[in-house]
Amino acid sequence: MELRDMLEKVKAGEVSVEEAEKYFAKKPFEDMGYAKLDTWREIRSGYPEVVYCSGKADQHLLHIFEMLYRENGEVLGTRASKEQYELVRERIPEIDYDESSRILKVEKPGKKRAGKIAVCTAGTADIPVAEEAAQTAEYFGNYVERIYDIGVSGIHRLLAKVDDIRLANCVVAVAGMEGALASVIGGLVENPVIAVPTSVGYGASMGGISALLTMINSCANGIAVVNIDNGYGAGYMASQINRLGMRSERGWRQK
Amino acid sequence: MELRDMLEKVKAGEVSVEEAEKYFAKKPFEDMGYAKLDTWREIRSGYPEVVYCSGKADQHLLHIFEMLYRENGEVLGTRASKEQYELVRERIPEIDYDESSRILKVEKPGKKRAGKIAVCTAGTADIPVAEEAAQTAEYFGNYVERIYDIGVSGIHRLLAKVDDIRLANCVVAVAGMEGALASVIGGLVENPVIAVPTSVGYGASMGGISALLTMINSCANGIAVVNIDNGYGAGYMASQINRLGMRSERGWRQK
Amino acid sequence: MELRDMLEKVKAGEVSVEEAEKYFAKKPFEDMGYAKLDTWREIRSGYPEVVYCSGKADQHLLHIFEMLYRENGEVLGTRASKEQYELVRERIPEIDYDESSRILKVEKPGKKRAGKIAVCTAGTADIPVAEEAAQTAEYFGNYVERIYDIGVSGIHRLLAKVDDIRLANCVVAVAGMEGALASVIGGLVENPVIAVPTSVGYGASMGGISALLTMINSCANGIAVVNIDNGYGAGYMASQINRLGMRSERGWRQK
Amino acid sequence: MELRDMLEKVKAGEVSVEEAEKYFAKKPFEDMGYAKLDTWREIRSGYPEVVYCSGKADQHLLHIFEMLYRENGEVLGTRASKEQYELVRERIPEIDYDESSRILKVEKPGKKRAGKIAVCTAGTADIPVAEEAAQTAEYFGNYVERIYDIGVSGIHRLLAKVDDIRLANCVVAVAGMEGALASVIGGLVENPVIAVPTSVGYGASMGGISALLTMINSCANGIAVVNIDNGYGAGYMASQINRLGMRSERGWRQK
Amino acid sequence: MELRDMLEKVKAGEVSVEEAEKYFAKKPFEDMGYAKLDTWREIRSGYPEVVYCSGKADQHLLHIFEMLYRENGEVLGTRASKEQYELVRERIPEIDYDESSRILKVEKPGKKRAGKIAVCTAGTADIPVAEEAAQTAEYFGNYVERIYDIGVSGIHRLLAKVDDIRLANCVVAVAGMEGALASVIGGLVENPVIAVPTSVGYGASMGGISALLTMINSCANGIAVVNIDNGYGAGYMASQINRLGMRSERGWRQK
Amino acid sequence: MELRDMLEKVKAGEVSVEEAEKYFAKKPFEDMGYAKLDTWREIRSGYPEVVYCSGKADQHLLHIFEMLYRENGEVLGTRASKEQYELVRERIPEIDYDESSRILKVEKPGKKRAGKIAVCTAGTADIPVAEEAAQTAEYFGNYVERIYDIGVSGIHRLLAKVDDIRLANCVVAVAGMEGALASVIGGLVENPVIAVPTSVGYGASMGGISALLTMINSCANGIAVVNIDNGYGAGYMASQINRLGMRSERGWRQK
Amino acid sequence: MELRDMLEKVKAGEVSVEEAEKYFAKKPFEDMGYAKLDTWREIRSGYPEVVYCSGKADQHLLHIFEMLYRENGEVLGTRASKEQYELVRERIPEIDYDESSRILKVEKPGKKRAGKIAVCTAGTADIPVAEEAAQTAEYFGNYVERIYDIGVSGIHRLLAKVDDIRLANCVVAVAGMEGALASVIGGLVENPVIAVPTSVGYGASMGGISALLTMINSCANGIAVVNIDNGYGAGYMASQINRLGMRSERGWRQK
Amino acid sequence: MELRDMLEKVKAGEVSVEEAEKYFAKKPFEDMGYAKLDTWREIRSGYPEVVYCSGKADQHLLHIFEMLYRENGEVLGTRASKEQYELVRERIPEIDYDESSRILKVEKPGKKRAGKIAVCTAGTADIPVAEEAAQTAEYFGNYVERIYDIGVSGIHRLLAKVDDIRLANCVVAVAGMEGALASVIGGLVENPVIAVPTSVGYGASMGGISALLTMINSCANGIAVVNIDNGYGAGYMASQINRLGMRSERGWRQK
Repeated sequence: MELRDMLEKVKAGEVSVEEAEKYFAKKPFEDMGYAKLDTWREIRSGYPEVVYCSGKADQHLLHIFEMLYRENGEVLGTRASKEQYELVRERIPEIDYDESSRILKVEKPGKKRAGKIAVCTAGTADIPVAEEAAQTAEYFGNYVERIYDIGVSGIHRLLAKVDDIRLANCVVAVAGMEGALASVIGGLVENPVIAVPTSVGYGASMGGISALLTMINSCANGIAVVNIDNGYGAGYMASQINRLGMRSERGWRQK
Repeated sequence: MELRDMLEKVKAGEVSVEEAEKYFAKKPFEDMGYAKLDTWREIRSGYPEVVYCSGKADQHLLHIFEMLYRENGEVLGTRASKEQYELVRERIPEIDYDESSRILKVEKPGKKRAGKIAVCTAGTADIPVAEEAAQTAEYFGNYVERIYDIGVSGIHRLLAKVDDIRLANCVVAVAGMEGALASVIGGLVENPVIAVPTSVGYGASMGGISALLTMINSCANGIAVVNIDNGYGAGYMASQINRLGMRSERGWRQK
Repeated sequence: MELRDMLEKVKAGEVSVEEAEKYFAKKPFEDMGYAKLDTWREIRSGYPEVVYCSGKADQHLLHIFEMLYRENGEVLGTRASKEQYELVRERIPEIDYDESSRILKVEKPGKKRAGKIAVCTAGTADIPVAEEAAQTAEYFGNYVERIYDIGVSGIHRLLAKVDDIRLANCVVAVAGMEGALASVIGGLVENPVIAVPTSVGYGASMGGISALLTMINSCANGIAVVNIDNGYGAGYMASQINRLGMRSERGWRQK
Repeated sequence: MELRDMLEKVKAGEVSVEEAEKYFAKKPFEDMGYAKLDTWREIRSGYPEVVYCSGKADQHLLHIFEMLYRENGEVLGTRASKEQYELVRERIPEIDYDESSRILKVEKPGKKRAGKIAVCTAGTADIPVAEEAAQTAEYFGNYVERIYDIGVSGIHRLLAKVDDIRLANCVVAVAGMEGALASVIGGLVENPVIAVPTSVGYGASMGGISALLTMINSCANGIAVVNIDNGYGAGYMASQINRLGMRSERGWRQK
Repeated sequence: MELRDMLEKVKAGEVSVEEAEKYFAKKPFEDMGYAKLDTWREIRSGYPEVVYCSGKADQHLLHIFEMLYRENGEVLGTRASKEQYELVRERIPEIDYDESSRILKVEKPGKKRAGKIAVCTAGTADIPVAEEAAQTAEYFGNYVERIYDIGVSGIHRLLAKVDDIRLANCVVAVAGMEGALASVIGGLVENPVIAVPTSVGYGASMGGISALLTMINSCANGIAVVNIDNGYGAGYMASQINRLGMRSERGWRQK
Repeated sequence: MELRDMLEKVKAGEVSVEEAEKYFAKKPFEDMGYAKLDTWREIRSGYPEVVYCSGKADQHLLHIFEMLYRENGEVLGTRASKEQYELVRERIPEIDYDESSRILKVEKPGKKRAGKIAVCTAGTADIPVAEEAAQTAEYFGNYVERIYDIGVSGIHRLLAKVDDIRLANCVVAVAGMEGALASVIGGLVENPVIAVPTSVGYGASMGGISALLTMINSCANGIAVVNIDNGYGAGYMASQINRLGMRSERGWRQK
Repeated sequence: MELRDMLEKVKAGEVSVEEAEKYFAKKPFEDMGYAKLDTWREIRSGYPEVVYCSGKADQHLLHIFEMLYRENGEVLGTRASKEQYELVRERIPEIDYDESSRILKVEKPGKKRAGKIAVCTAGTADIPVAEEAAQTAEYFGNYVERIYDIGVSGIHRLLAKVDDIRLANCVVAVAGMEGALASVIGGLVENPVIAVPTSVGYGASMGGISALLTMINSCANGIAVVNIDNGYGAGYMASQINRLGMRSERGWRQK
Repeated sequence: MELRDMLEKVKAGEVSVEEAEKYFAKKPFEDMGYAKLDTWREIRSGYPEVVYCSGKADQHLLHIFEMLYRENGEVLGTRASKEQYELVRERIPEIDYDESSRILKVEKPGKKRAGKIAVCTAGTADIPVAEEAAQTAEYFGNYVERIYDIGVSGIHRLLAKVDDIRLANCVVAVAGMEGALASVIGGLVENPVIAVPTSVGYGASMGGISALLTMINSCANGIAVVNIDNGYGAGYMASQINRLGMRSERGWRQK
């Protein structure tokens, strides 16, 4: 611990007050701040860094994947292209790629998945975004139940699944076009709903802006919204909420 | 009939071919067109003219109301202010005013109301717009069933009423904020749904634009949308559709 | 009928009350709901399911087409690419593809088409969307009259066709750019007009948003609007309205 | 003429080359430019300055009106409030105020009005904007024909007036809501159409933006658009065009 | 239990299979659905109904407040005007009103507040919205820490409070104008952040749309967004999350 | 002349009044209207039909070009691709194509160009749109002066050309990005300015919407705006205005 | 100095390493950060805090004004209402209020104003915003030259003043409607231009959004934009730039 | 000097007053204006012309590059494609191309870079825009410090660099998505911040519009905004500001 070391040296006379003052004055934020934030990162180390692959230069991507894989024994990338998959596979042959969700990952075998997150979609076209959410949450150690194609224009499909959905600590509701799924689910469950608008649609769907507005204007309680197509963000926040919900059950990660 | 008269005179030599040609050439649209359109107005005379009161000058408003009342024995005005009501009441003491829907009317007693239109709202704040639709449709001789406050964030309320809604020849779905009501109803009924976005809401509801976009993007079949708060327009089109649906039952207007 | 079977078995003692209760309790919406909706679907069985092809995975598309074709002896797909056509043709050689409207279908021969829907366009560039509407309506058993290229900037073209348009139970008005066609038609006919904005245009047409706004703001009575380029949705709703108009007539207009 | 005077003095040796150079170098734009623009202003002196009253401070407004009235024997103000009218009337008792168009003016008696501009509106609510256009054009010496309430949802009204409209050198088409009037007129006349969107409407009319988009996207030839509610701007440009059309005619109307 | 009763009667022959079938077929959604949802409401009864006062008719408002107060011994209203406060006070003299947050409430004395929610604002003008969130969460039994005026344009204010914020199970970040507060907090804490854009600002803040977009586009993990000025919605969802986080500590509900 | 023929036959008794009435009643708009509009087209025959090539089917395009060329000895197409040029060239080898403006045309040799239209651009990237305007106006017989790259960020370039611009009967001002050119020119000339926003730019230019808004909001008098990139529309309206301005000089087209 | 004190005490053994560690760990950002930022505030103390009055509670406003006045002997408030002026005047009778710019201030007499900032407006309606900028800059010790009403629709007015404008270290260009002023000035000067869009205008000016877009899209070099009507922000940044420009002349602060 | 020559000739009688008058009257803006502006260009000759390559025709681009290179011995192009690089390299083999920033340049060797501009980015994806800014500023002779990937969602990264940033005369803050970087920096430094929104992002980032709005709405003082992705514009204005800051220092920081 850098802070304590320095203080011990001051006490021991190994470092003069002047030198110590200069040291702290020069990097008040950098070092202390950094140390503080590092500790904090350690605390929540259940969340290894995730790589947003889209637009990364090849050498950059390879380097990050290899480094994270070496450190953690597993690695998760989102928005990866097939070309990036082929590139990474040459170095990490055990890498897996899911063309629909564009998830590129190696996951430690036998990982426990606890709690429950329900990931729901309105239509089949929303599944890629939902998979990004689901696989992110699974990678972070959460149990995920997928409930797809239950859009509100055929409400009986949703109603048939309502008990399953209500058991989750957190629901991720993924929908494009009119995006009404989140409102209906919000009215049926007691835990939080994270709404993910998708860019699915045409015409006045305006690349997901319509669905985003629908969700933001929801009359149901307990709904908050992430960016269009941001499955990763929804999976991350659902993991945070599920983890809070699991603490009581058996202690998060055996603490 | 102007057209026939002219032709008779040509035949009789009372009007020369040149004169007749000039006559027709000069007003091909005006007279013929006018006659034609008049006939057509007569055909659909079941729809007496409705007065959009908002912004009308006082003298103008009074004149229109008196004229229409004299001619038809009834008159319907929309978007009327309380001041306009008080103004008109001095001349037409039997006039009725509904402060919520801002409908100003005298209606013939004992009017038959046939067929069935269901007018539904998501919340109670949408009722003024719904009443504009309902009272317009009733004025045009349609039977209207009001089913209010069945928004999708408490889906059981809607489900409890679904049989009533399904019996209508046309459904008017009125909703602000996220505007998802129309989609859910659209998936449950077999007849057309006219969606009316309302300006109810705040923040990102943007005066009804959000609800309008939701409705336009609906994944359900059989939904079309009118302008924000346009209860009159929805009531009018629902009347057209209900009338089509009633023809078979006993004949529209005793034909 | 699942519901009745179960009740018969309860009466006969073949199934205990407890078992039946568990059965219903476990799937109260799914099965009953499903049965209910099935019945309803049966009622309106003139509307076989239609396939939205765009973005469907190849195996998925093939499976749905084959299944629907086997069940119904006919099948209709919208927004199909030429590649999808070639794919399906290998399994269903009698399939037809219309490159302009992107309709992919096999239709039962000798289908009766009753009532009348008028499908109108402002320009020739709007025809693909209009054809999606027209062919959808025809597939559902409606008689469709196509009246194309009658945009309001040459009003005499529309006026020349006004009698044909007025005989329809429902008019579909398809227009891009300024989208004024629906307003003019709405003022000339007595039956409902479904307005379809198209993405035809450039500059401030903003992919059809301008035409959508024009149509939503129409001053004419009896107009409602569907999504940009949503020919299918307009054709569907026009079918619902035409069907209502045909009930009474046992042979509409002596056909 | 300042320029010539200076040059004469240089020639006469009354002003040295150095002094003249300094003079020109110091105000090359101001004086010359000013002189130039003055000349130009003189050339088109048919257009006296018009006062945009809205938001002007009282003393400022009074000063401008008195100055212009003294100079020109007449004065025109737009967007004037009733309070401003009462203020100005105390100093200029012969001032006239039109509450609808908010025009505040004294006009020279017996002014000749030549050529022809047609000012058309879709509805009666568009008349205030139309009057701003019409009275501006009249003030500039143009003959104006008002043709109001000929909106496209009752196309026969427009068709009945088409000959009158076609005789104008320029048409001003004023419309709110769907704003389709300009397109229909544009297709029927041979001279330019200036389209004025109005803020009339509600809901998705968005204060005139919808009408503006409709008009900008017009498929008809010969249409250009001014700002929402900018009757003055349309009246000004119509005057420019009418003036061009009148040049040849040495007494238009004497034909 | 209605379901079991009916089945018993079928078994006993008291009700025929036909009658039972009709019964279930007629109200499959209504009764079962309703019963089901009622149970669910009971389960989460920790959340008494909250009244959205804005726009409620006086009699309606009084009735709801009296009924809820009688039933629950406490009542919470949001978006109440001062007039509504005075109205309600005549019937419920112990009612409290907070002019800034427009919260109108009677709360049971001695209510325990558990867990921890941090409610933060960027500026002082965001406090009314923050108070709506904070008082809602407190009413639902959550401990709330208010940390106001820590906007990112003076980042040291936020950094000085970061430890306090990090101890919360959920953070509510309230900000208008550029709305960057949520992103900075999101990068510093491990639990979820609910971002509330406010309509505070002028010019290009567009009534909160800018802040909403900023928050939706946040690069930080663990952020989701509610509607502009929707303090209530944020307070509600924060309560859901805090409750999940508290379960483990001593058992929620055993208090 | 159909109209006269019919009247002659009525007079001669060859056609009965009843038959004639039915004839007129059946096609009141089509035939008469058509005749009327034909006459009108003849009057302004200086404007041969122009072909909007973009999106036209190959056979359609060929047919229209050949037909118009045969009839008029010249033909003008806008928005033509290089492929379309090559297609048409096989049939009409004398066709010319300008890759920048995408104009495809054969023009009669020795055509007189009268009056004066100034076509100005802010930058060099606006030239393709300006050329569409200029070549359209030239094709219609107008003399066009091109004054390019005089954007307001280097105002001296514009000032150096101001005398040339002021001599035009109409100015076309073409600009993208901030689109300020029209305002500056509008303040310097006495004749109308047609402003053409272009889609040139990036970022917040939003495909020309920014330039469109700038131009619509111009404080200068005598400016009206056409659609983004609509060089043809500006060229057409400039031709209408120039023609009005030329009447006086020597008679339009030697009439 | 808190930091040094603590280190001295550690060295002297008056504070144990553990205690010191806890101290630093507990407030690493707050105290150090705060100290650091304080120093920085001192450095730029030429900028006393400015009060944004709009929406401040009365007691709050009074307290801030009195405190700042006592501390600095002067105080500046922006966006103050007349009521706020009257309120503050009771406590600080020497306070001045400018109704147009809504500036509320006491300024130390005899303040030197150095360097040069030019504040320009397009029209007279933009002056309130310009005055907010000018008076802010003057309060911060800058010499300001006001050059108002030089909008681009009368370019000679701007050209006549160009030499004055070019001598400024920084230009503030204030304009509403089409907002083109900044572009023209940007092309004429060598120092930075801060563009301030104003909400002046109507129709498609959309409360200043149009002017903002124009300015953001400027083709001229050396222009950056602040929020609509944000005269204060422009005055602040102009002060920063002018101060940089003055350093060389005689040394900033030695005055 | 043209002006003096002419005056001398007038004095000497070589040119008559009339001729001189005509001469000045004919080109008052063109020649004098041009001369004036030329002088001005000379004054700020530190800024050689920069080439915006995107969309330039090949011959045009080659010609400009060769001309500027010959004249200045160096040349800078922005937004160049790889194809353009290869094209220019054939003529100017010493040309350099940076694929990320798309800068194409030859720079004089040994150019001094003075003062200090800090160019900061939120993420790595913003680097291409930042490099356009940085390399532009370097080309103009400014010392640039790059501080990349310090986005606000990991605030410690920014805090660690705050001293470096504060030493700059001007900061360029480049950020996409939520764009909050500029606000945080603005609150930490005393010199001006130029904010550059980038089109980096997806969903509701709307191609950079969201980041632009965030930046325009910044609550921090001393921030102004340029167009989305406009690194060049930011680099240019930063150069202007840095130059002002350097004037006094005869060797800024002893370099």
